[in-house]
Amino acid sequence: MGARKGNLMSVRDDIKVVDVTIRDGGLCNDFRFTDEFVRELYKTNIRSGVDYMEFGYKASREMFDKTAFGKWKFCKEEDLRAIVGENISDMKIAVMADVGRCDYKHDFLPKKDSVIDMVRVACYIHQIPAAIEMIEHFHALGYETSGNIMAISQSSAGEVEEAVRMLATSSVDVIYVVDSYGSLFPENAGDFAQVYYAIADAAGKKVGFHAHNNQNLAFANTIETLSYGISYLDASAQGMGRGAGNCSMELLLGFLRNPKYNLYSLLTFIEKYMIPLKNQGIRWGFDLPYMFTGQLNLHPREAMAFEAEDRHDYCEFYKSLLDNI
Amino acid sequence: MGARKGNLMSVRDDIKVVDVTIRDGGLCNDFRFTDEFVRELYKTNIRSGVDYMEFGYKASREMFDKTAFGKWKFCKEEDLRAIVGENISDMKIAVMADVGRCDYKHDFLPKKDSVIDMVRVACYIHQIPAAIEMIEHFHALGYETSGNIMAISQSSAGEVEEAVRMLATSSVDVIYVVDSYGSLFPENAGDFAQVYYAIADAAGKKVGFHAHNNQNLAFANTIETLSYGISYLDASAQGMGRGAGNCSMELLLGFLRNPKYNLYSLLTFIEKYMIPLKNQGIRWGFDLPYMFTGQLNLHPREAMAFEAEDRHDYCEFYKSLLDNI
Repeated sequence: MGARKGNLMSVRDDIKVVDVTIRDGGLCNDFRFTDEFVRELYKTNIRSGVDYMEFGYKASREMFDKTAFGKWKFCKEEDLRAIVGENISDMKIAVMADVGRCDYKHDFLPKKDSVIDMVRVACYIHQIPAAIEMIEHFHALGYETSGNIMAISQSSAGEVEEAVRMLATSSVDVIYVVDSYGSLFPENAGDFAQVYYAIADAAGKKVGFHAHNNQNLAFANTIETLSYGISYLDASAQGMGRGAGNCSMELLLGFLRNPKYNLYSLLTFIEKYMIPLKNQGIRWGFDLPYMFTGQLNLHPREAMAFEAEDRHDYCEFYKSLLDNI
Repeated sequence: MGARKGNLMSVRDDIKVVDVTIRDGGLCNDFRFTDEFVRELYKTNIRSGVDYMEFGYKASREMFDKTAFGKWKFCKEEDLRAIVGENISDMKIAVMADVGRCDYKHDFLPKKDSVIDMVRVACYIHQIPAAIEMIEHFHALGYETSGNIMAISQSSAGEVEEAVRMLATSSVDVIYVVDSYGSLFPENAGDFAQVYYAIADAAGKKVGFHAHNNQNLAFANTIETLSYGISYLDASAQGMGRGAGNCSMELLLGFLRNPKYNLYSLLTFIEKYMIPLKNQGIRWGFDLPYMFTGQLNLHPREAMAFEAEDRHDYCEFYKSLLDNI
């Protein structure tokens, strides 16, 4: 297995911090962020040294009702440009495309006509061939790409390794370890990191990590995988993201030693925009129901329903989950 | 350095889970728990397989105003017995004695006349000689003892190692790594664990870990140190403890593979007693101000004052902390 890379004092120049607040956080409010919120987050991320900002999904406008979601479910070119103009910054723009939920052949311009830099392709393990087809399409259009294999905690180690090998032979730039259920302990996350890194590094690819905070381990797992050579690190302001949320950007920026990363700019954004969002009732973050699904390695959907109904009968809920295993 | 002990699937019979809810949580409400709360927690801990329950401090009744605190600041024998009787259970009873803040020569009965099993002696690194004097006193009375060196993140590695060596030559049973400021990352905590374990194990002592959750790493640090042979693990219901709180017992019980540990009993207690406590306005847990002091390796006192004043000017507070370094 791979050795640890760097140490707690040194700077790793290969690190790329990816802000996923709008994309994963959008799952908490149906992507209904104000333009002011998104624009200020964009400016904050640039000042904070964030390397990529993911603006949302490129979801199919055929499949999804445009009136049921805010604009970041679809990330139309003109909506992106209304925020970033030509994006004259060092920060790159990313969007996510889900296998089977986007019209990727029609909805993406050639890179030279778009402010988007990277398309992140999310798939389940049985969709790897479809993901690779999309990755090759985006690569041919001129985009950077990532392949994000979800729900790996429910696949066998052999399947996961085979999926990573398939991605590694594609044109993909980054292969992501995704802890969809927040069920990984740092030791598990580190093991996945080493498997992905060995295969990806040999093929000249980078590896990323996307955490969920069901067991309050999103940050811990992120820095554990980092220590094994993972370089693309997903995080969001106050950990905003579906269910228990993601790795908190403020924790990550406080950890990284590269002076390009700046915590203070993010704090001003949190104080002015994130705290009010929470006060408006938008909910995410570590809580018992998400802990249960994380511990039991289950999809968080029942926990999200429990929270949405504002239930507090945790014991009954826990027992009902045990029937699901 | 030491190798990792056991793996994620196996049972480590040397593990001792220590519930610190009343003792560390008492710092959030001046130890004003109802008898019902403490009695139900006692019964819950027994059902959950908890190995030790710490009931509070044996603080000096000369130094501290008895009317300003609940009874668990003082842990009088009759108050303990009102809850536990003769403690006819496998769970042991612990109390904490702070160097310089207890009348240890007068306030402790011989073990044969007390339901207390273990006295945990907390000290700063310059108080090691005083701590050892107390440990020898408690040992002579027949108690198990631990030595808990606080605030090690502000001492040099050499000082810490020397302090551990001094404790290891005493009659102490357990030497604790204490992350008072919640400033340790798992890699740091693991390094401390290995240093403590090597010295303690050679002297026939056990090692414990007491976390704080300032960087949302209390659970992660606990299981990291566990993997290096640490066996006494402090945790509390919902992480209740001073400031950002401790390792959550529900996360720890969900992690441990020994079937003697039972999460469900704890959930019933949380639903009936902990959630109402939070709803009454007793505050603890991860929040930005505690994150700041953890990241900056500072005592949490300013963060506690910030929370007590219900301030929300995080940026101003952060800047004021930078002036303190």
